[in-house]
Amino acid sequence: MEYISLPKPYVDVVAECQAHMGEQVTFSGTVHRVRSFPEFSFIVVRTDRALVQCLFQGEEIGGIRREDVRDAMVVKVTGRVHEEVRAENGFEVELSAVEILGKPYDKLPVPLGKKYMGLSLDVDLPLRPITLRHPVKRAIFRVQSAIANGFSEYMISQGFVHMTSPKIVSAGAEGGADLFKVDYFGTRAYLAQSPQFYKQYMCGIMGRVFEVGSVYRAERHNSSRHLNEYIGLDFEMAYIDSMFDVMAMETGMLKYVMEYVKKNCAPELELLKANVPEIGESIPSVTFHEAKQIMLEKFGHKSKNRFDLDPKEEKMMCEYAKEEFGSEFIFITFFPSEKRPFYAKDDENDPKLACSFDLLFRGLEITTGGQRVHDYQEQMDKLNRRGMDASLFESFTIMHKYGMPPHGGLGLGLERLTMQLLGLSNIREASNFPRDMQRLEP
Amino acid sequence: MEYISLPKPYVDVVAECQAHMGEQVTFSGTVHRVRSFPEFSFIVVRTDRALVQCLFQGEEIGGIRREDVRDAMVVKVTGRVHEEVRAENGFEVELSAVEILGKPYDKLPVPLGKKYMGLSLDVDLPLRPITLRHPVKRAIFRVQSAIANGFSEYMISQGFVHMTSPKIVSAGAEGGADLFKVDYFGTRAYLAQSPQFYKQYMCGIMGRVFEVGSVYRAERHNSSRHLNEYIGLDFEMAYIDSMFDVMAMETGMLKYVMEYVKKNCAPELELLKANVPEIGESIPSVTFHEAKQIMLEKFGHKSKNRFDLDPKEEKMMCEYAKEEFGSEFIFITFFPSEKRPFYAKDDENDPKLACSFDLLFRGLEITTGGQRVHDYQEQMDKLNRRGMDASLFESFTIMHKYGMPPHGGLGLGLERLTMQLLGLSNIREASNFPRDMQRLEP
Repeated sequence: MEYISLPKPYVDVVAECQAHMGEQVTFSGTVHRVRSFPEFSFIVVRTDRALVQCLFQGEEIGGIRREDVRDAMVVKVTGRVHEEVRAENGFEVELSAVEILGKPYDKLPVPLGKKYMGLSLDVDLPLRPITLRHPVKRAIFRVQSAIANGFSEYMISQGFVHMTSPKIVSAGAEGGADLFKVDYFGTRAYLAQSPQFYKQYMCGIMGRVFEVGSVYRAERHNSSRHLNEYIGLDFEMAYIDSMFDVMAMETGMLKYVMEYVKKNCAPELELLKANVPEIGESIPSVTFHEAKQIMLEKFGHKSKNRFDLDPKEEKMMCEYAKEEFGSEFIFITFFPSEKRPFYAKDDENDPKLACSFDLLFRGLEITTGGQRVHDYQEQMDKLNRRGMDASLFESFTIMHKYGMPPHGGLGLGLERLTMQLLGLSNIREASNFPRDMQRLEP
Repeated sequence: MEYISLPKPYVDVVAECQAHMGEQVTFSGTVHRVRSFPEFSFIVVRTDRALVQCLFQGEEIGGIRREDVRDAMVVKVTGRVHEEVRAENGFEVELSAVEILGKPYDKLPVPLGKKYMGLSLDVDLPLRPITLRHPVKRAIFRVQSAIANGFSEYMISQGFVHMTSPKIVSAGAEGGADLFKVDYFGTRAYLAQSPQFYKQYMCGIMGRVFEVGSVYRAERHNSSRHLNEYIGLDFEMAYIDSMFDVMAMETGMLKYVMEYVKKNCAPELELLKANVPEIGESIPSVTFHEAKQIMLEKFGHKSKNRFDLDPKEEKMMCEYAKEEFGSEFIFITFFPSEKRPFYAKDDENDPKLACSFDLLFRGLEITTGGQRVHDYQEQMDKLNRRGMDASLFESFTIMHKYGMPPHGGLGLGLERLTMQLLGLSNIREASNFPRDMQRLEP
């Protein structure tokens, strides 16, 4: 029998080294690159977050021969830190002890030690457990992690309650045929297209809720902006006056997230040469109708799509926002109701329009949101008008039947936001282990 | 065109009222209960988190008749706050304005206004969008939310990086037949039984990672402690000396989470009459072998299960921990390797034992964790010894092949922890929309 005590405090290797200049430090990592000279070698050790240059002098240290230290070995090293302006982070560690904790059994299949690996996605993706060890690649996911953390932290600060929702469902929330089928003990079930119904339920329960969870779309796309499984950052809030309250919340959230990322990911942003947008006190917003006018007047573009913006038009509107307002974000509001979901609230002044919006960022839609129908009769009428069988939605409309507050919310694709923030050209680069039509592994 | 500015600051209704005693306040909520007298009514309004007693005097306020205010109406109310020791939270709001924001279309199917509804699960679960509006029920999920938030916050403070992993996978990580099948564009796929492979990959990439995500088990259980879809709190950490480092991290995490819950959920803990355990500086730990001895010597119980503890034995060991060490938690370590997963590291001193542990809390196993195999040859040998086809695991063992640090981690069931913390008798009470063999809705 023994007692398990609290863990040792966490130590960031770079901070530790910088705090102990001239002294001895011990840390662990993987051999990232070895550069050998006749009398010594530079051994660059990849720690959890950084590269640390170590100096191995002589032929042997404590039984470990210099020539045996090779790429991808996992090591624990001890040595004296000293300033070295030419090394990463401005210091170097002169080794006095080396312990081997793990070893590779084959030569690395990709040049991890190079500044850029220059791999095509076809080579990169199947080898993700290895390729993501590259400092530039893994930096993407540390930024993604910060986006999710910043999102949660902001939501909590605004009185939102973290929620989870089942992903095995009996029906799709967004309609259409793009549902993955699951065999649920012999019953046909589906993977959730969104947490929509559940966040509305929870909004009637808690007032303000958010979720960070998986979303499934069985779309037969093979594009650079679609994944078949992605992470949705969702929130839903009650007692709103209009969808503009939801948009204000998104503005506040994005401002917070951008500041969070800048504060927590400085080394990664530098590695990725990323430029985090400034969100001042507001984000510009135009109606769908205005957007069509703007594209016609400003770009001589006559839009053919009556219900939505196509990718080219999203780029155009972002160009406009940048030029006109110096903003990298722009909201588009009041889309035609016809192609918006059945739970979207229609505009009281013009029922052909939905109180629904998209947010565009650097040329790409990253959010869809809006106010939802909260009145039971209004929801039943809308289902009926669309020729939908309301009896199939009884477990959804039960919440309206027994009273719902006015409410609205949105969903934001984590990978899309990551992609746009970091200027990646394919969404697969912003998903650690992407799922697309051809890919189920790793 | 317009500018969308930042949202109004979030206001907690109770704090707002308490800060404005004697003054006028405005807030929104749902009519929870009405008690009518000849000259006035007490209207208890359920806000996002509390119940607020409002006094409606006279027959009408601004066009709203007193007799028309009924249960489940969503209202925005204005009035003067004054102290009232007999009311919830010690104050009452004397209404001067009432606005109706939403209305019910039918009489509530359950007695939401009662202190306890006294529903069986069969009645409760199908009506969850409504029944969770009850203060006691929704309190469970605010505590659950705090557990998840506290977990994330602690992990981040210890240098762990938030990760996500695909839930549509090509093979199960935990073996067995308990996998839900998914039709993935005509290919057979499964729902992930755990993020095991992915957190090991990410651990080789980031060093320390955590995830809060869905886990799927197609087990044909109909028990009070199993769900077919649940939320796993997972972490994985590199550069450990042994599994005891993982257990220390769990000790620190649980201590933090319990303090977080106490700090952030005081009203809910009171409503639920919950007793949050004290974790001092340690949690006791005994080996599986010792546990068998203890049960024999202390309880005269001769265990028949050579590989695990059964539910009765879990209770027994918790009774022992409580009596002997005053602890509501106890670790059980070094289980027989044979029934532990193929990725578990075997004990160097006795290869028949795995460096694997469970954590028991108030009579129930809530965690399984341990050290993992990190050496490629050791992992290949273990697969082969078990008669498993190593070629099926190439996308997993690729990480070992190119060098892995010693590492380990664990998974904790969020619903199980919630259930045990709050003394719930069925795990379905700790899942907002549970999935079991009979249940796919709501």
